Amino acid sequence: MKEIAGSRQPLYLQVAYQIEAQIRKGALRIGDRVPSIRGLRRQQGVSVSTVLQAYFWLENQGWIEPRPQSGFYVRTPYAELAPEPEFHVSRSVPREVGIGGLLDEIVSNIGDRTKVPLGAAAASPALYPNAKLNKIISRIARADPGHSGRYEMTNGFEVLRRQIARRAIGYGCSFSPNDLTITCGGMEALNLAVRAVARPGDVLAIESPTYFAVLQIIESLGMKAIEIPTHPRSGMDLDALSRAIRKHHVRGCISMTNCHNPLGYILDDDYKKNLVSLLTGFDVPLIEDDIYGDLAFGPVRPKTAKTFDTAGIVLACSSFSKVLAPGFRIGWIEAGRFRDAVRRLKFINTVAAPSLPQLAIAEFIQSGGYDRYLRSLRETLSKHAQLYSQAAARYFPEGTKISRPAGGCFLWLELPGNVDSLKLYRQAALQNISIIPGEIFSASGQFKNYIRLSCGFPLDDSIDEALRTLGKLCGRVSIGGNGSV
Amino acid sequence: MKEIAGSRQPLYLQVAYQIEAQIRKGALRIGDRVPSIRGLRRQQGVSVSTVLQAYFWLENQGWIEPRPQSGFYVRTPYAELAPEPEFHVSRSVPREVGIGGLLDEIVSNIGDRTKVPLGAAAASPALYPNAKLNKIISRIARADPGHSGRYEMTNGFEVLRRQIARRAIGYGCSFSPNDLTITCGGMEALNLAVRAVARPGDVLAIESPTYFAVLQIIESLGMKAIEIPTHPRSGMDLDALSRAIRKHHVRGCISMTNCHNPLGYILDDDYKKNLVSLLTGFDVPLIEDDIYGDLAFGPVRPKTAKTFDTAGIVLACSSFSKVLAPGFRIGWIEAGRFRDAVRRLKFINTVAAPSLPQLAIAEFIQSGGYDRYLRSLRETLSKHAQLYSQAAARYFPEGTKISRPAGGCFLWLELPGNVDSLKLYRQAALQNISIIPGEIFSASGQFKNYIRLSCGFPLDDSIDEALRTLGKLCGRVSIGGNGSV
Repeated sequence: MKEIAGSRQPLYLQVAYQIEAQIRKGALRIGDRVPSIRGLRRQQGVSVSTVLQAYFWLENQGWIEPRPQSGFYVRTPYAELAPEPEFHVSRSVPREVGIGGLLDEIVSNIGDRTKVPLGAAAASPALYPNAKLNKIISRIARADPGHSGRYEMTNGFEVLRRQIARRAIGYGCSFSPNDLTITCGGMEALNLAVRAVARPGDVLAIESPTYFAVLQIIESLGMKAIEIPTHPRSGMDLDALSRAIRKHHVRGCISMTNCHNPLGYILDDDYKKNLVSLLTGFDVPLIEDDIYGDLAFGPVRPKTAKTFDTAGIVLACSSFSKVLAPGFRIGWIEAGRFRDAVRRLKFINTVAAPSLPQLAIAEFIQSGGYDRYLRSLRETLSKHAQLYSQAAARYFPEGTKISRPAGGCFLWLELPGNVDSLKLYRQAALQNISIIPGEIFSASGQFKNYIRLSCGFPLDDSIDEALRTLGKLCGRVSIGGNGSV
Repeated sequence: MKEIAGSRQPLYLQVAYQIEAQIRKGALRIGDRVPSIRGLRRQQGVSVSTVLQAYFWLENQGWIEPRPQSGFYVRTPYAELAPEPEFHVSRSVPREVGIGGLLDEIVSNIGDRTKVPLGAAAASPALYPNAKLNKIISRIARADPGHSGRYEMTNGFEVLRRQIARRAIGYGCSFSPNDLTITCGGMEALNLAVRAVARPGDVLAIESPTYFAVLQIIESLGMKAIEIPTHPRSGMDLDALSRAIRKHHVRGCISMTNCHNPLGYILDDDYKKNLVSLLTGFDVPLIEDDIYGDLAFGPVRPKTAKTFDTAGIVLACSSFSKVLAPGFRIGWIEAGRFRDAVRRLKFINTVAAPSLPQLAIAEFIQSGGYDRYLRSLRETLSKHAQLYSQAAARYFPEGTKISRPAGGCFLWLELPGNVDSLKLYRQAALQNISIIPGEIFSASGQFKNYIRLSCGFPLDDSIDEALRTLGKLCGRVSIGGNGSV
């Protein structure tokens, strides 16, 4: 295959785009087998690894899916396919985050279980392996009756740290159990990470859109955020990131490279490598939020930026709250060379993580139960994403664009430019439907016509009805229109 | 009884001092019954409530103990009594807390279970009601299998908030369950409270000595502390506190009015009332750390400063970690008019507290098991304090002064002026004994010849031996002496 002159796209992307084009043109149709790896390698004159990367990217984008012992097939899903949200460049200047009031209002309603649950980015509790966890809990209560009387200050239980380290090998991270710190959920991990790398007044580079709690953390600590334009399929613009770092005294960068909240993408290994190498060059630490990493839809658990960290500048944060047991409140952080600072802060913040949940998770992972369970959860969530996407395409107005998530449990919708998603949020609340308006994913007033839709619950009649209602409401909540709130 | 002219001591204290003097002189001896309430009332011409307050104070000081249906008796304990630590006035100016390094070293060793446990201020895990809690846990796992799949964002489970509110009535606090927020242990409650009332650079008034983690929290948030001289039996000097507030822009005050860590006192109701009224006058919020309040040795659960808060300026913080189950990581805060700020911070910090422990504690309290258990725990810890105190008096050098705690599980020792307690800490560590040097309870280098000794474990041979060893080591660790470290 010839390199396109002047193209800065990596080879595998060029390969992938060709296949994507064939699908779009209908040359390859839903259910068709795409060329075999060997076939494509010969046909294009590229390496097996380039082909694999291309397929991985296509899979992440929802174009193809693997079938066991059979190769890759064009998938049904995002199929009749609504187009994906677009990339709009925006100015980026560091600013204090001042959306506290709006965020408070919305966050305080996220957990409202009386509403149709399209807000919180979590799976239905019915999908969690509660029976298995309870069996383990009861066993521990009998076999280790003193569990609640003791606790592991700061670091957390070694049995759990060992299991996390063992699993991380699977995605290329060689953590030492000694370098891991167990936290009270992923949110504490993020907090400790931010506080370890920056002080009040400091500037942090963040994605745009970004998980709204990141904005809240930055605001609550009196820090500033510079939003880096972020492509809805391919991540933060690394040139813009470089410029921001050169221009401002950026003390850290926060990124979700896997199952981005809200964009849904999984960035490829090259991107992750480049991001780490860029930040290493500037000596700017990267706080990587990998909380949805285990929910990647594909068959292979994606690598992380941390995988490519040789200088200890990546603070890898994750949690079992989104994938296993929100009520356990167990997350973790491997903070690279910030390990000691993080542990100091962990003691001051909450002393230790709860004991019994740590012991239960450790046992569940060690028994192999966790990975078995994850496989079926990922499959379920992947189906949810497809079904929700199809329903949204049906009910939402012409011009709506829908993300094609590569993992996680939410869709990101770009509504027609005149739809005010904050008004939509409030109108939906009146109809007992919970969604998240796009505005709170940015500190600079972007994404006013975007929403995040959770797809963690099976798409039953009430949810279908709610999606239909949302679609109808879109017509009544135009920016500057009458539906004022 | 005649008021002593010019005396600013309240009446009950004058009564109490008279009885204390009789005990010291030997006019009342160990095991003697002290005058009945009615008798003393007639004899001194004071009200019943004054006599009761006097007895309460004497009991808190370890001089007398109640026996059921029989009145108060001179108690054995702090008996051949080593004198108590003395009050030394110190300068107080706001300062940045810069003892991080030393604190880190010491805190990271507190949890070391290979050492004789005279460091951590916690009861022996064997004293916790583990069997009962495990029974409840297994029952919940069967009856409510979805517990770990759901969580109560921010506020915590209502069943637990209701039980906490119900118990608080017993010490005069009329909390609404709606105003309580469940936290990941008492440390998180303190953090949220501090962050709710102050910003980086702000000044907080603290006791001296104070629980060392308070210093760490203030340091980690870039705030400043002004240490208020604190009498080892009667609390912060309120005049000094007033002056500090007048002179500096104090944004909050942190105090332990019950079972003070490390001093051990319980302040009387008048003091608590005065403290709250003083701070209300200045509109300065009070962060009250009541984490050991349920461990008061006396038969009556002491009131809190919060009891007397009518303006909503008290942020009451407590926890089940010291009294029930350290591994549960469940604390709480009633933040008065800072409720919403605290809840916002709670979401950002850790989202929610773990579910199963909340449900288990709620059930244990509701069943009456918690209060029954507390009665026996308090009795046990009260005995520990006496036995440790006697042993310390035996083994430590002439001139050692020992606190007479009214609750909790630690003693505060003022060693002879030439003993360097930091050296003692390090020498003790070499002998596998864990203690806490006094220096880390202050940001201004005070208490260099003090130590805190935990008395949470039964005084067995190994602990007796450790106390003997500590006593001997005191001779080798004089300030400026050879035992340099």
